[in-house]
Amino acid sequence: MTTYQLEVIENTAKKDKPAQDQIPFGQTFTDHMYIMEYETEKGWHEPKIVPYGPISLDPAAMIFHYGQTVFEGMKAYRTEDGRVLLFRPEKNFERLNLSSERLSIPPIDEELALEHLKQLIKLEKDWVPKTPGTSLYIRPYIISTDANLAVGPSSTYKYMVILSPVGSYFPGGLQPVVIHVEDKFTRAVKGGTGMAKTAGNYSSGYQAQANAKKEGNADVLWLDGVEKRYIEEVGSMNIFFKIDGEIVTPELNGSILKGITRMSIIELLNSWGIPVTEKRIAIDELYEAYQAGKVEEAFGTGTAAVISPVGELNWQGQKMIINNHEIGELSQKLYDTITGIQTGKVEDTLDWTVEIN
Amino acid sequence: MTTYQLEVIENTAKKDKPAQDQIPFGQTFTDHMYIMEYETEKGWHEPKIVPYGPISLDPAAMIFHYGQTVFEGMKAYRTEDGRVLLFRPEKNFERLNLSSERLSIPPIDEELALEHLKQLIKLEKDWVPKTPGTSLYIRPYIISTDANLAVGPSSTYKYMVILSPVGSYFPGGLQPVVIHVEDKFTRAVKGGTGMAKTAGNYSSGYQAQANAKKEGNADVLWLDGVEKRYIEEVGSMNIFFKIDGEIVTPELNGSILKGITRMSIIELLNSWGIPVTEKRIAIDELYEAYQAGKVEEAFGTGTAAVISPVGELNWQGQKMIINNHEIGELSQKLYDTITGIQTGKVEDTLDWTVEIN
Repeated sequence: MTTYQLEVIENTAKKDKPAQDQIPFGQTFTDHMYIMEYETEKGWHEPKIVPYGPISLDPAAMIFHYGQTVFEGMKAYRTEDGRVLLFRPEKNFERLNLSSERLSIPPIDEELALEHLKQLIKLEKDWVPKTPGTSLYIRPYIISTDANLAVGPSSTYKYMVILSPVGSYFPGGLQPVVIHVEDKFTRAVKGGTGMAKTAGNYSSGYQAQANAKKEGNADVLWLDGVEKRYIEEVGSMNIFFKIDGEIVTPELNGSILKGITRMSIIELLNSWGIPVTEKRIAIDELYEAYQAGKVEEAFGTGTAAVISPVGELNWQGQKMIINNHEIGELSQKLYDTITGIQTGKVEDTLDWTVEIN
Repeated sequence: MTTYQLEVIENTAKKDKPAQDQIPFGQTFTDHMYIMEYETEKGWHEPKIVPYGPISLDPAAMIFHYGQTVFEGMKAYRTEDGRVLLFRPEKNFERLNLSSERLSIPPIDEELALEHLKQLIKLEKDWVPKTPGTSLYIRPYIISTDANLAVGPSSTYKYMVILSPVGSYFPGGLQPVVIHVEDKFTRAVKGGTGMAKTAGNYSSGYQAQANAKKEGNADVLWLDGVEKRYIEEVGSMNIFFKIDGEIVTPELNGSILKGITRMSIIELLNSWGIPVTEKRIAIDELYEAYQAGKVEEAFGTGTAAVISPVGELNWQGQKMIINNHEIGELSQKLYDTITGIQTGKVEDTLDWTVEIN
């Protein structure tokens, strides 16, 4: 189809690349970005790679008023021998379309999106940093653009991809964090948008996160919106526990994000012969297990950190100190294996990486 | 303060105004718009009235990714003798700041915002339509503008106001609507953002609304997110019932929007000596009352429609036909009184209107 021909407009004024050891997350962007437009009659059309720069929207554009938008987060990694790898990118595009369905946004062609992403990263290959722990963060997103204040789905959209070189999530090495168990604010509820990666799910957590930070916590652990009892996510990561030898994680219930790192950890553990139980985990039962000395490890999982060990949970004035604030053996092994696969240091036996050629 | 001096840049290329009898909602905008910027160091500053036109944002602007944004909706009305009235605008700015607090957005100066709104509308006075039922819709909103993909509050914002002449909500006269009682999808939950006017609350309803429309319903009635039993809102309006002579409406519980029309109806009824009970209303109890022949009227309330009579509720295969699909006496009286006050036809004994001079 002619409308699917990718047009590339090269940036002739290339930026200087930042020093690789101290790049703040998500504030530096590469020389190019990707845009594809949607109109009801034409479908998705006119994919383009253009110089990175401001976009112009009508002040009545629906994205500003009714939040019809979805996004993804993924990374490109540099191997020691200079190759560039993506990690399960097809899962991100699959989830983007799942999110879009929930938000009444028309699906994109997942294969085409991946093909065009590869071409974008190929063009920006020099932006993929080399220092250990660094990567090129990839942000695909869709915004609704009709200039119309009537509440309802837009008839026009922009699908865009921007790229940002990012430093190590743990510049001083993997570090367990202190987390507040949130019992006032709610992230998501059954029948809501919790399973979708959509903008409103994130800013709705700011107030709880600010309160938690004031009390010395790094982030919050969200409980379910109905009973305020069952564990859902930590910050914007999924969460796992090792309790009395068993690996458990909250089951996907419609209000929890279907994390790709979460999925990969389950598959990886299974490949090692270690089962993972996906189930409802009540905070009071976790506390009981903690008091019985059975909570051995806790860690968040997500694209940004991969594995973020939890050293302490604060719940209604009770402290649960996990593994003496130290990184658990399993947490470390999972972190090393997954980051190893992502950067080509560990053999990719599960066929997860996609090389940019 | 010099930073609070309003700068006005007049539009020299004024648009033609649309025919007043058939203006679609929210698609036509006036010649000017209002913008004020926020930076952490400067606070809100540089308020400006400028020609209506596109705004330019970095593709990493936080509004596109994490949905930190709030808005308001209000109207300017034309009286028969040519004056222009606002309806309780101070309540909208008060609510805007309440919404902003929930979304971790810095508050605006409510008095200044009203003063500048008046100046904007004065400049656009000719855009306030004259035909009965028409008005000038006012959309104040705040968007987060940091170019930063790190999840967290923005340090820069834009507060904007755009204006749109709108036709009558009921071009054929007040008309009862058919509503689906939603028992799968959830709009909001305790601890969430339901009480805030923020973008994500609106697009999250599209899927339920589309399903309801396929089955011949105009919109959905939302139930609470916890038990899926207690009535919350209809579409993006509050809801009232007259049951066995008693006027009832769901109590403000944190997940229901604090509607200004809702508040006005309660105050108006009280001024007539009619009490309104704000309480939890269970859908099954409503159905029982319906079967006993006690549900006399039902109506949604909001800025767009003022009063939207509900003629039928569809709940789990059961139909509740209310007042024989006809407009209730109370619904009509409230509609006539409030629209009468708004347009200067009925004496404003409660001191609700603000004239633009």
